[in-house]
Amino acid sequence: MADMNKSEKNMPQVGIVMGSDSDMPVMARAADVLEELGIPCEMAIISAHREPDVFFSYAKSAEEKGFKVIIAGAGMAAHLPGMCAAIFPMPVIGIPMHTSSLGGRDSLYSIVQMPSGIPVATVAINGGANAGLLAARILATSDPELLKRLKEYSVKMKEQVEAKDARLQTEGYRAYLEGMK
Amino acid sequence: MADMNKSEKNMPQVGIVMGSDSDMPVMARAADVLEELGIPCEMAIISAHREPDVFFSYAKSAEEKGFKVIIAGAGMAAHLPGMCAAIFPMPVIGIPMHTSSLGGRDSLYSIVQMPSGIPVATVAINGGANAGLLAARILATSDPELLKRLKEYSVKMKEQVEAKDARLQTEGYRAYLEGMK
Amino acid sequence: MADMNKSEKNMPQVGIVMGSDSDMPVMARAADVLEELGIPCEMAIISAHREPDVFFSYAKSAEEKGFKVIIAGAGMAAHLPGMCAAIFPMPVIGIPMHTSSLGGRDSLYSIVQMPSGIPVATVAINGGANAGLLAARILATSDPELLKRLKEYSVKMKEQVEAKDARLQTEGYRAYLEGMK
Amino acid sequence: MADMNKSEKNMPQVGIVMGSDSDMPVMARAADVLEELGIPCEMAIISAHREPDVFFSYAKSAEEKGFKVIIAGAGMAAHLPGMCAAIFPMPVIGIPMHTSSLGGRDSLYSIVQMPSGIPVATVAINGGANAGLLAARILATSDPELLKRLKEYSVKMKEQVEAKDARLQTEGYRAYLEGMK
Amino acid sequence: MADMNKSEKNMPQVGIVMGSDSDMPVMARAADVLEELGIPCEMAIISAHREPDVFFSYAKSAEEKGFKVIIAGAGMAAHLPGMCAAIFPMPVIGIPMHTSSLGGRDSLYSIVQMPSGIPVATVAINGGANAGLLAARILATSDPELLKRLKEYSVKMKEQVEAKDARLQTEGYRAYLEGMK
Amino acid sequence: MADMNKSEKNMPQVGIVMGSDSDMPVMARAADVLEELGIPCEMAIISAHREPDVFFSYAKSAEEKGFKVIIAGAGMAAHLPGMCAAIFPMPVIGIPMHTSSLGGRDSLYSIVQMPSGIPVATVAINGGANAGLLAARILATSDPELLKRLKEYSVKMKEQVEAKDARLQTEGYRAYLEGMK
Amino acid sequence: MADMNKSEKNMPQVGIVMGSDSDMPVMARAADVLEELGIPCEMAIISAHREPDVFFSYAKSAEEKGFKVIIAGAGMAAHLPGMCAAIFPMPVIGIPMHTSSLGGRDSLYSIVQMPSGIPVATVAINGGANAGLLAARILATSDPELLKRLKEYSVKMKEQVEAKDARLQTEGYRAYLEGMK
Amino acid sequence: MADMNKSEKNMPQVGIVMGSDSDMPVMARAADVLEELGIPCEMAIISAHREPDVFFSYAKSAEEKGFKVIIAGAGMAAHLPGMCAAIFPMPVIGIPMHTSSLGGRDSLYSIVQMPSGIPVATVAINGGANAGLLAARILATSDPELLKRLKEYSVKMKEQVEAKDARLQTEGYRAYLEGMK
Repeated sequence: MADMNKSEKNMPQVGIVMGSDSDMPVMARAADVLEELGIPCEMAIISAHREPDVFFSYAKSAEEKGFKVIIAGAGMAAHLPGMCAAIFPMPVIGIPMHTSSLGGRDSLYSIVQMPSGIPVATVAINGGANAGLLAARILATSDPELLKRLKEYSVKMKEQVEAKDARLQTEGYRAYLEGMK
Repeated sequence: MADMNKSEKNMPQVGIVMGSDSDMPVMARAADVLEELGIPCEMAIISAHREPDVFFSYAKSAEEKGFKVIIAGAGMAAHLPGMCAAIFPMPVIGIPMHTSSLGGRDSLYSIVQMPSGIPVATVAINGGANAGLLAARILATSDPELLKRLKEYSVKMKEQVEAKDARLQTEGYRAYLEGMK
Repeated sequence: MADMNKSEKNMPQVGIVMGSDSDMPVMARAADVLEELGIPCEMAIISAHREPDVFFSYAKSAEEKGFKVIIAGAGMAAHLPGMCAAIFPMPVIGIPMHTSSLGGRDSLYSIVQMPSGIPVATVAINGGANAGLLAARILATSDPELLKRLKEYSVKMKEQVEAKDARLQTEGYRAYLEGMK
Repeated sequence: MADMNKSEKNMPQVGIVMGSDSDMPVMARAADVLEELGIPCEMAIISAHREPDVFFSYAKSAEEKGFKVIIAGAGMAAHLPGMCAAIFPMPVIGIPMHTSSLGGRDSLYSIVQMPSGIPVATVAINGGANAGLLAARILATSDPELLKRLKEYSVKMKEQVEAKDARLQTEGYRAYLEGMK
Repeated sequence: MADMNKSEKNMPQVGIVMGSDSDMPVMARAADVLEELGIPCEMAIISAHREPDVFFSYAKSAEEKGFKVIIAGAGMAAHLPGMCAAIFPMPVIGIPMHTSSLGGRDSLYSIVQMPSGIPVATVAINGGANAGLLAARILATSDPELLKRLKEYSVKMKEQVEAKDARLQTEGYRAYLEGMK
Repeated sequence: MADMNKSEKNMPQVGIVMGSDSDMPVMARAADVLEELGIPCEMAIISAHREPDVFFSYAKSAEEKGFKVIIAGAGMAAHLPGMCAAIFPMPVIGIPMHTSSLGGRDSLYSIVQMPSGIPVATVAINGGANAGLLAARILATSDPELLKRLKEYSVKMKEQVEAKDARLQTEGYRAYLEGMK
Repeated sequence: MADMNKSEKNMPQVGIVMGSDSDMPVMARAADVLEELGIPCEMAIISAHREPDVFFSYAKSAEEKGFKVIIAGAGMAAHLPGMCAAIFPMPVIGIPMHTSSLGGRDSLYSIVQMPSGIPVATVAINGGANAGLLAARILATSDPELLKRLKEYSVKMKEQVEAKDARLQTEGYRAYLEGMK
Repeated sequence: MADMNKSEKNMPQVGIVMGSDSDMPVMARAADVLEELGIPCEMAIISAHREPDVFFSYAKSAEEKGFKVIIAGAGMAAHLPGMCAAIFPMPVIGIPMHTSSLGGRDSLYSIVQMPSGIPVATVAINGGANAGLLAARILATSDPELLKRLKEYSVKMKEQVEAKDARLQTEGYRAYLEGMK
């Protein structure tokens, strides 16, 4: 299995898809996390609404391409994650985009409130990094090496908070606040 | 054109589609209105999430079948109307279903907040009758006979309100309220 | 009918009306789309609240002027679309305006939650372009030439997304993001 | 002026209007309060949406009929109070009706969020009694007798609360709760 | 009574009160409208929370000072209008202030949702001008001169909209939009 | 101090106040918790809106009566907790009541969103028991005996959960669910 | 690996945890789905708030016990899923419980809006079945047999919808509605 | 007890904790108030999510360190205050942080909607100063000196409002507004 894993690692395990390039700044954070954790991924701009045929081909061929997880981001009446989950049989992670009028509630409800039978693993509004981490956690259920890297990632996060607290204890909050400006 | 209209009248001009039979009480009100106005329609239960292929065939063949309007109802993360509008090139009317947790806000946002390029003509939460009337108004843009029937329908609505007011003026509000129990 | 259509094409088929010129940037997108699709329209600023008599005349004469569809935009307690629909017997499309305090929820609810009998075809908050497209879809139910133009419009939208995806595949997301700044 | 007041008292000073008889249980509480305070009023069922002409006549003739205040109740996309205020030049009190899907938020926003120039004096969702009291307070600005009756009404309300507290102090809360069942 | 009215006109008929000077830009619009309509008013900064005794004296002495209406503005947990209405027996108009976190929903609910017995005439979020107009409408129920000025005010509003529409018809919307920049 | 404490224990340390007896089922849970923890309290029905003078006397004399904490419950435009906090200088705990139209959001915002300077310690909607526990925690900051009782209370809560889990492990979830019916 | 898989199948791969047995009807649907798909799971009632030590032990030992996924359900200020995700390094699926006051919005926001670094895979309010399916999809990323069973499950769902539509086509909607009563 | 109090005063009585230094501008206002009132406090940055072990030690040792009150601020799925309250037996004050997508509703619900048994004393969104004042009020239940200082603080607040009103009465609102720019 190790060998198979190696070859698999050259294939993208995670598909990242968005309906519009305006979502890219958020989606890029998912890709950044995956890269940092050594997980190959493939990003695409595909609109379920503007090119339903292209979308269908994408979702149907995702399993063949070796995807184990799809991360789909969308805003407003956000149908892309749910439609991916209707076709792709493995986990689909949905990222609701912030929207200027409803703050992303529209995107959130359109993604998380899936009817029984078709789950979408929803993360926070604009939660690009967490989508990447969730994909990694999913892959880590069968990849002990990746699980180890995830734990190291957590240690790093912890150390960053500790460093900030140490600075606060040394400087006091007034100086700390000054330094934040 | 009159002849063509006659033959057209035997073909369904409006498709009514819902993802689950739990939506049928609301959708039936649309069908009732269309029948009352003499507009042939065809009702179907098709889930964009549970049977995306069936759904795609339905939406793609709708124009051929002679549909001029599709009325699509859905609840929660309601993707059916928007996905219809992505494929069918004429008007799609969306009915957001009332939901027990969010009162239908989830359905409403998932239907009305469509991104630029793919409109869904959204009516009120559980607005089955209005969806039927909106379909009729759309068809009436090219059907003077139907427009006439619509105007008669409006007159009837007006008379119903007038009758209620007349009863109120005669009985007074206390007796009227008693009679409502 | 062809001849009649020709003369009709010189008459405005779509009325665009707003209560305040602050709504014009959104309403203009509807007019732009209609123009691009070759549909004559007529824009007016008429307030149902500040000049109810002018409004009533407008709504009552709309059918005579040849309007087949009215697009009405309004913000806050947005009564213009619903009051148009109370008088004009063909489709009224409502555009809820974004509002600074409630994000447009007030406009949306005031437009979409019409009582049974009087439908308003509601589009997204600030959805000017979609209102124009919906009007076109409505007119296309009896105008095969327009339907053809609408399909071409859809193809163009699809090609724009494909071009963006092609650029992403070529450049990679980091360069793409750089290019967006 | 006293004489004129007397004759005025035989004319209705307050118009109570609702779009549907389903609103009557709430509107009746306004009428009950007005009657208790000796203010003649006149109730009507008139739909701004289903019979705009009847509505216009009503609103335009309200001043002539001697109305000083209109209380208008409506639910969902509640346009009746705002449209009254667009025509009638004295105070319009709006009562937002509770709605099953949005709890009355739709009615509330449609009534209270009036654009600058056309105020509606909005009370709580289903706030029938308060609408009656507000009408009385308005009329009391020029009617010292009525003002006196309003103050007596307040004393009575205060005494009711004091009686309840007295009972609580005597019985203790457990017995009091038992007595509420 | 005419004489009495004259002397009354030198006394403030409307009290305008706010809890914080941050509300003044909104409250000033109420004062501006009242001044334009020739209604004397008196503005004060009084916090029901920070100086309850001062507030109580204010509310209790309001009737004696000749106030017929109080306009009270407040934000967040906005108690000032409701507490005024608990003490002052004539109409209290509440203006909910826009808030940065909840957009003014907190202010709106705190003002409009008054329990039975104590009405507050609530206007839109930040609705300063409408509060002034509503006070004028209230006073106009017993002041025919003021009613006449209010009708002239409405005519002016109507003419402003008509002038904008005339400009739109002349210039076309593209030039109009250019002119708005 | 021990003696003083004893005598203090005979005096009520916590005032429980509500504006309407309809709030009593929720407020009673606070009283029940306080009694269980041996903290004397005093319950009253006092409306800040219907009897502002009574309310003012109550709030002003609360310190003299020996109250260390006031628990105030209110619904809709819930002003009672905030007005208590404006007068009483020690902690005021606010309980937002569930409301039929807005679910208690109105009560919650009216209580928690207090402006700077006047805090109200807000608990969950209908959170009667937690209000009692919070009062106990506050008093426990200077009462080691009470702190000990609070810790025992927590142990009991823990044991209840453990007993339920033990039953689940023994019976399995299907039998457990059956037993819940 | 096949052997290891066998032994693994006797160990629970999914932990199902809830803070209160009132959540069990929803959580049971997750367990039912997992059982139907042949995935061993283990259910527990553990409160992060009432027994934080028990909770910590549970979350820390979850990996050792062989859990690959935790499904955590919670209502109101729902901290259980997020705190699980803070400790357990593989996927945590969160189920927001419906709540009587806020409809589950409180639970949803408390679960989905996790800060960067700690994702929770959130499903719909009361989405027990979808949580089970999502866990299965996660495990299916490395278990081709399970993936096959999941696809069969999808086929069954599709067939159920098709059967309903067939019945509708045969009976007509009026008879169908009758049969639903 | 006086002596003990003195030594206690050198020990921090209030712990201020936040999960991220982005919350510090709000938390600093709590510290400023406490300092102004002479209450020693200790601030820390500790994430319940990113370092659950550090968090547990912190919460468990808080009583030993002499804390009587913990002020915890958090945003989004804000678990820190509730988890503190699950471990620390005296009052925990929660500050919901404003969030860009949901305005702080997510933080508010995650903090205030605690289940029965574990109260968090919640203040307004971004209510740093009020959290400090609430902590002072809590400590003042057993510290007459502090209670006196709190009353003096209230007097100062009152004087600030009175000074503003005096300026308004002298200058008039137009000049006052000018001076605010």
